[in-house]
Amino acid sequence: MSGKLNTKKYVVGVDLGGTTVSIALFNRNLDMKKHVVVPTEAAKGIDYILTKISKCISGLIEEEQIIKSDLSGIGFGSPGPLNTDKGIVFSSPNLKGWKNVPVKKLMEKKTGIPVYLENDANAAALGEWRKGSGKGVKNMLFVTLGTGVGGGLVLNGRLFHGKNDAAGEIGHVVLFPDGIKCNCGNHGCIEMYSSATGIVRRTKEALKTGIKSTLSQHDANFTSKDVHQAALKRDKLACRIMEDTGKYLGIVFSSISHLLDLDMIVIGGNVSNAGKMLLDPIRKEFLLRTMYPARNVKIAKASLGPDAGVIGAACTVLERLGK
Amino acid sequence: MSGKLNTKKYVVGVDLGGTTVSIALFNRNLDMKKHVVVPTEAAKGIDYILTKISKCISGLIEEEQIIKSDLSGIGFGSPGPLNTDKGIVFSSPNLKGWKNVPVKKLMEKKTGIPVYLENDANAAALGEWRKGSGKGVKNMLFVTLGTGVGGGLVLNGRLFHGKNDAAGEIGHVVLFPDGIKCNCGNHGCIEMYSSATGIVRRTKEALKTGIKSTLSQHDANFTSKDVHQAALKRDKLACRIMEDTGKYLGIVFSSISHLLDLDMIVIGGNVSNAGKMLLDPIRKEFLLRTMYPARNVKIAKASLGPDAGVIGAACTVLERLGK
Repeated sequence: MSGKLNTKKYVVGVDLGGTTVSIALFNRNLDMKKHVVVPTEAAKGIDYILTKISKCISGLIEEEQIIKSDLSGIGFGSPGPLNTDKGIVFSSPNLKGWKNVPVKKLMEKKTGIPVYLENDANAAALGEWRKGSGKGVKNMLFVTLGTGVGGGLVLNGRLFHGKNDAAGEIGHVVLFPDGIKCNCGNHGCIEMYSSATGIVRRTKEALKTGIKSTLSQHDANFTSKDVHQAALKRDKLACRIMEDTGKYLGIVFSSISHLLDLDMIVIGGNVSNAGKMLLDPIRKEFLLRTMYPARNVKIAKASLGPDAGVIGAACTVLERLGK
Repeated sequence: MSGKLNTKKYVVGVDLGGTTVSIALFNRNLDMKKHVVVPTEAAKGIDYILTKISKCISGLIEEEQIIKSDLSGIGFGSPGPLNTDKGIVFSSPNLKGWKNVPVKKLMEKKTGIPVYLENDANAAALGEWRKGSGKGVKNMLFVTLGTGVGGGLVLNGRLFHGKNDAAGEIGHVVLFPDGIKCNCGNHGCIEMYSSATGIVRRTKEALKTGIKSTLSQHDANFTSKDVHQAALKRDKLACRIMEDTGKYLGIVFSSISHLLDLDMIVIGGNVSNAGKMLLDPIRKEFLLRTMYPARNVKIAKASLGPDAGVIGAACTVLERLGK
């Protein structure tokens, strides 16, 4: 029995977010065995967070009645920018005080287990590719539509990092060169139009012009989900906003497909819960604009839901070990 | 001596174009030893072209006093779409009658030498990466600005083909979603603005509005080179057209850098002969729009000139043999 236990058949995934940390234990097939979600409490400092994560990992190991040496490693997904080789998080807008944090070194010291750092969107891309909608394809773009628009690329069957671990920033692909200013300084980035924030902004702007909509009865803080719900009830403005959201993505996907000749584009994040209402206009616009053979790309909804991050973080361990 | 000759120290490159075929013999370091350019005469049929190329190769081998078995292979650059594994050219707009031509098989039969087929823009990208401006970088976009806009990608130190050998079609990245219709069916492709054809079209459109320019004295058939020349003489319209050409490329390069986090972008093709006049506005617009660290990409002029294609075709042999 102990021989079996020593074959390193477990992997840990950590998905660090601004609000919560998701930590899970997986077997070698990446089936989730144990899972815990705890508040980040970023204000309490870096050591506090990392100690808490370390304790959670110890807890999961104990619960599963295994020993540390049964683990191949800990995959640690974090917002970036970061350096995967050195295991350092340079900074993170949602984690106050995080500046050049040597996460790999600190976590390895605390846990005694090898740690592999990865950008959170890249980790989610890996998750969808190894266990989700993109399973088995060679070239895949993963796009996450949330507060912003992020993503990751799997090219030739490996996560593609680029020169500085910064590849996959699809949110800052330009949709309208003379469009509105993005937080990044650029103008007309797709993130300003097809993120949850972009959906709400465009809806509010339309309401200001006096267009009739059930959404005008909402308080000022309605969300992109409210727009989706209104569209389901055939609210004209909401339908147009959702259709344009897809159309804008279809334009950007066409450009990327001509550039990269992908097998698949996988769409995740909260906004993707709109499903067909979003995917149909994406596909329509994409096909109008894309030549053969790039037009043959499959466009699908992500299938791992909010667990993509933690599953992907665990996948990072296998990816780095070349498995 | 014969032992030395048998170490396969030569490579042949073939760059097949609509008007001419460029054929050259290289040593293993890819130094060009012999070079010949012959008319394509596409109207005379496929067998005629391939026989002529084959005879040229035999001629080069004889001149250099080597034997066939000294050759690692023939790299064959052709317009596409094509399949590199099967060695088949599916079709080519500039080679009438070319439909599903098994170039690899036909050429191997004629020459008795292994043949490696590659898309011509990809071959040129390989050339600039192995022997030109992109030497030694890991992630590079090559862009060729000619009648159209084409390109190729080197990612993680290998030519990136995509699913269907169609990656690198940067010409059909969308610049203006509501822009003019492209030959491909899409709207607002960068090819319609920053190619030689795009430069001439935009200049003619401006002249029609009555803008004063030395170019209005030209006959209707002026070229993008004439626009460049007029800009060198401080013609206001020509200066604006050249500046916008660069600006448009800068926008597209910003999107691609955010997506791929490249080391370098190399710009070739006739239009790139404008040099600083083109590169300065490209860099200016790129820096205005691009975040750290993607903004650190180096943007440079291609250095191999019109020989990039034939040099790159030869590189294809080494690339396929994993050297």
